[in-house]
Amino acid sequence: MRVKQARGASMSGSRIGLDALKAKVMSPEDAAALIGPGETVGMSGFTGSGYPKAVPTALARRIEAEHAAGRPFKLRVWTGASTGPELDGALAKANGIEFRLPYNSDPIAREMINRGEMDYFDMHLSQVAPMAWQGFLGPLDTALIEVTGIRSDGSLIPSSSVGNNKTWIERASKVILEVNRWQNPALEGMHDIYYGTALPPDRRPIPLTRPDQRIGEPYFRCDPAKVVAVVETDTPDRNLPFDAPGEDHRAIAGHLLEFFRHEVARGRLPANLLPLQSGVGNIANAVMFGLVDGPFEGTTAFTEVLQDGMLALLESGRLLSASATAFSLSPEAAHTLNADLDKLRDRLVLRPQEISNHPELIRRLGCLAMNGMIEADIHGAVNSTHLMGSRIQNGIGGSGDFARNAYVSIFMAPSTAKGGKISTIVPKTPHVDHINQDVQVLVTEQGLADLRALSPRQRAEVIIENCAHPDYRPALKDYLTRARRDSYGQQSPTLLMEAFAWHQRFIETGDMRG
Amino acid sequence: MRVKQARGASMSGSRIGLDALKAKVMSPEDAAALIGPGETVGMSGFTGSGYPKAVPTALARRIEAEHAAGRPFKLRVWTGASTGPELDGALAKANGIEFRLPYNSDPIAREMINRGEMDYFDMHLSQVAPMAWQGFLGPLDTALIEVTGIRSDGSLIPSSSVGNNKTWIERASKVILEVNRWQNPALEGMHDIYYGTALPPDRRPIPLTRPDQRIGEPYFRCDPAKVVAVVETDTPDRNLPFDAPGEDHRAIAGHLLEFFRHEVARGRLPANLLPLQSGVGNIANAVMFGLVDGPFEGTTAFTEVLQDGMLALLESGRLLSASATAFSLSPEAAHTLNADLDKLRDRLVLRPQEISNHPELIRRLGCLAMNGMIEADIHGAVNSTHLMGSRIQNGIGGSGDFARNAYVSIFMAPSTAKGGKISTIVPKTPHVDHINQDVQVLVTEQGLADLRALSPRQRAEVIIENCAHPDYRPALKDYLTRARRDSYGQQSPTLLMEAFAWHQRFIETGDMRG
Repeated sequence: MRVKQARGASMSGSRIGLDALKAKVMSPEDAAALIGPGETVGMSGFTGSGYPKAVPTALARRIEAEHAAGRPFKLRVWTGASTGPELDGALAKANGIEFRLPYNSDPIAREMINRGEMDYFDMHLSQVAPMAWQGFLGPLDTALIEVTGIRSDGSLIPSSSVGNNKTWIERASKVILEVNRWQNPALEGMHDIYYGTALPPDRRPIPLTRPDQRIGEPYFRCDPAKVVAVVETDTPDRNLPFDAPGEDHRAIAGHLLEFFRHEVARGRLPANLLPLQSGVGNIANAVMFGLVDGPFEGTTAFTEVLQDGMLALLESGRLLSASATAFSLSPEAAHTLNADLDKLRDRLVLRPQEISNHPELIRRLGCLAMNGMIEADIHGAVNSTHLMGSRIQNGIGGSGDFARNAYVSIFMAPSTAKGGKISTIVPKTPHVDHINQDVQVLVTEQGLADLRALSPRQRAEVIIENCAHPDYRPALKDYLTRARRDSYGQQSPTLLMEAFAWHQRFIETGDMRG
Repeated sequence: MRVKQARGASMSGSRIGLDALKAKVMSPEDAAALIGPGETVGMSGFTGSGYPKAVPTALARRIEAEHAAGRPFKLRVWTGASTGPELDGALAKANGIEFRLPYNSDPIAREMINRGEMDYFDMHLSQVAPMAWQGFLGPLDTALIEVTGIRSDGSLIPSSSVGNNKTWIERASKVILEVNRWQNPALEGMHDIYYGTALPPDRRPIPLTRPDQRIGEPYFRCDPAKVVAVVETDTPDRNLPFDAPGEDHRAIAGHLLEFFRHEVARGRLPANLLPLQSGVGNIANAVMFGLVDGPFEGTTAFTEVLQDGMLALLESGRLLSASATAFSLSPEAAHTLNADLDKLRDRLVLRPQEISNHPELIRRLGCLAMNGMIEADIHGAVNSTHLMGSRIQNGIGGSGDFARNAYVSIFMAPSTAKGGKISTIVPKTPHVDHINQDVQVLVTEQGLADLRALSPRQRAEVIIENCAHPDYRPALKDYLTRARRDSYGQQSPTLLMEAFAWHQRFIETGDMRG
C-alpha cells in the first residue's frame, strides 16, 4: 500500500519530484564535464540493464577530444556487472578506461584487456560492495546512476537493475543521476533495498528466509546535496535479441530436468524444488523453458538475472516468484514485461547484488545453482572465464558466490564448441574458476555426470563417459590410462607436460584435434 | 551455572551416568564386531583430538584377520578431519578403508591414496554435515564417537573436538561410544552444540554475532536406544610435539603483523583487529606467538583449531576468547590447558565444524583468515593440497570456507621448500584450491604482496617482487616477460607448454632449478 501511495505522490507530472534536483538538470555534456581525469566512477548497470546511457557517451567524446589535444584522460570504472555499448563500448573505444571491475562482456573492452591495454579485476559479484566499504578498492569519486525517477523527498526510484547502486551512492563524493523516461514507472515498488549491512564487528544476520521476502525499502536514499547533475534520457536498455535454444541446449535441459525428477523421487529435493539460480545465456533459458512444460509446480527463483525463460516460467504460473538484481531481456520479453508489470510486480523483487548473491542467503535458501562453463577437466574443475588459459571472455560474475554455497552446484555446456574443434571436457583446465569441490553436477548434451561424493579418480571416469563428446572420448580415456600409470601421485592423476597440449594445438592449428 | 550444576550431577563416580548404557559396556573387540564389512562409519576426531582410540584398532585387527581368511572387509570412513595413528593409520595399514572423507593427514593413508588404492574425497569442512543431511554422501551405518562422559539423561559430554559428531550421532543407525577417562572432566560446559540447523526451505539465520557467543547446548543429544556399545578408554590424544617457529616463520609473522599495524593505522581494521582464523602448523603458531608481543589488545578468534600459539595468546590476556571446533596441542600445551582449564573454560568455545566454518558466520564476523599454502602462482592462485599437481598432501580442510568469506584472506609459506629445490612462487600452480579472487594477501619470509584490487597482470609483478625467493626471481621475471609477449590473451599471461616445466623438472631431477 505504501508503495502505491508513494508512486501516486511522486510520479505525477515530471519524473523529478524534488525542485532542488530539477534545478540541477543539465545536458549530458555538462554533466560529463564534472568528471575529471583519473577519477574512479561507480556506474549503475547489470547485464545490460539500468546503465547510464547519455553521460558515458558524452564522457567518451570528451576523452577523445582531450586525447586529441594530447592530454591524458583515463578513468577507473566500477559497475554492477556488464553494461551496454553506450558505456563500456564507448569508453573503451575512446581508450578512457584504465582499470575496470567487477565484470565486463563488452567486445571492445575485452579486446583491450586481452591486448594488455586495460587492467581488469574480475570479482565475485557479492564481494564488490563489502570490499568497497572495507576501503580495499580505493576511494570513489563519482556515482553515475540511472534511475526511473526522483521522489519529492529526494529518494530515488531504481531502474531495471540494482547492482551496486546503493553502495556507489553512499560511498561517492558526488552523484550524477540519469532519469530515464523509457523505464516503466510501474517498476516503482518492485525493488527491495536493504540498508542493514555494516562493517564488522557490527554485521548482523540478514533476516531473509524466503526468496520473495522484502527486508528493505523500495527506494535508494540519497542526500540531494551530493547530487551535482541530473540528466534526462529516454533510451532503451540494451535488450539483445533472444536466440531460441538449439538442439544441444534442449538436450542439456532435458538431462537436468530428469536429474531433478530423480532427486525428487529419491526424497533429496522437495516436489517444488528449491530456489532456482540460473546463469545468463541460452542454456539457462532452455532450462527455464523446459521447466514451463515440466512437472514442478510452485517453484521460486533466487538468482542474479531475470531472462526471457524465467519470465516465461513466471507467466506460466509454475514459478511463483523471482528475486534478482537485474533484468536481461530481449526486446520482445521487455515488451511483455512492460505490458504485464502491474500484474507481475508483486512476484518480482530486485535487490542489491550483495544481497542477491550473498553466500549467507544462498546457503540458507539452498539454491539449485545452474551456471554455464567454458570447459571442465576430467576431475571436475571448471573454467568459466578464460579461453586457452589466458584470454578473458567475460568474468566469474556470481558463479562463485552460487557454486560454493548451492544445495546442488551444476555447470552446463555443449560438449564441443567451434564446430567440434574445441572439447568442453579436457585433461586439465588451464584456468580454474570452480574447484572440483564446488562442482557437483556436470551436464552436456551427451549426458549428466553426478559427481557427489566421488573422489577425483572416480569423477574422471564418470565425466568422460557421460559428458565428453564421442569424438574426444578415446583421447581422454587414453590420457587417463597413461596418467594412472605415470602420474607423480594418484589422487588427481595428471601428466604435466601433456595437460595443456590440446589447448596449445588449438592455438597453433585452430583445432584441438590437430 | 547450569553447566556447573550439571557437571556435579553427572560426573560423580563413574563417567557413565546412565545405567542403561553402563549395561552396554564391552571390550573394544566386542564393539568392533558390531561393525560389518562395507559399512560406512562416521568417526569423531579433528586434528588429532577426540578421535576414538580403542575400537578402530580392534577393528583393524579384525579386518586383518578377515583378509587373512580370504574374506573382503573394507569400510567407508568419515570423520571431522584428521585423526591419529590408532584410527587412520591402523585402518589404512590393514587395508580396511575403501573410501575416505573429508580430510586426511595420516602418512600411511596418504601413501595408499597416492598409489590409487584408496578413494579420498577431500571436502570443504563446512559442507560435510549439510551434505550428509542432504543425502548426498549416502547412508551412515555406525557413529563411533569419543566422549568425555555420559550424563544421567543420556546426553553426552563432548571430548576435545566436536567435528561432525552431532551429525554422525543423529544420522547413524547405531552408535558406539568410547568414554575416555583421559579427557579432562573440566571440558564439560565448554562446548556449544547448535541444534538449529535444518534442510531448506527451513533453514534460518544462525543467531551468532560474536565469536564467544553461545547459541546451543553443552551436550550432544543421543537416544540411548541407538547406542549398541560403550567402550571405556584412558588414552591421550595424538598431541604431537611442538616445533618452535624457525627464522622464516618468524619473518612471515613479522610481515603480517606489520600489515595489520598498517591497516589499523589506515582505519581499515579496528585497533583490536577482527576475529582471527589461523590454520594449522608452524607459521600459524609463529603468528600467534608474534601477537603475544604485539600491540593488539582485546582480540578474539573464530577458527577451526586451537594450537599452542593461540593458547599462549589466550594465556597472555591479549586474546579475550577463542571459538574453534578442536584442540591441536603439543603434550606440554595440553598439560598447560588441563591445569588452567577451569580458569580458561569460559573464554573457550568448541562448536560443530559446520558452525566453526560456516560461510554465513565467517563473512558476518569478518575473519582475518591466515592459512598455509604449498605454492602460489604469479597471478595469485593458491595450491593448498597437491604436490606436483597430482599427489595429495593433506586436504583443503577449512581453508576454502575461510578464504572466500574472510575480511582479508591471507596465505603464507616460506618462499622455498626442500632446501631451495622447490619454489613456492611458480609460473602456474598445477592444482588450484584458491582462485585468485580468494587470495588478497600472500606472505613469504621475503615479504608481503597486497593483491587487493589488482588485476592478474598487476599481481604478477607484486608477487614476484615481494614474495619470490631471489634465486627464482629472475626466472619468474623472464617467464612473465615472455608470457606478456607470446600469451594467447593478456588477462592472465600464460605459456601453456612451459607453465609446469618447473614441476616436471622437480619430478625428474629433484630440483625445480634443474
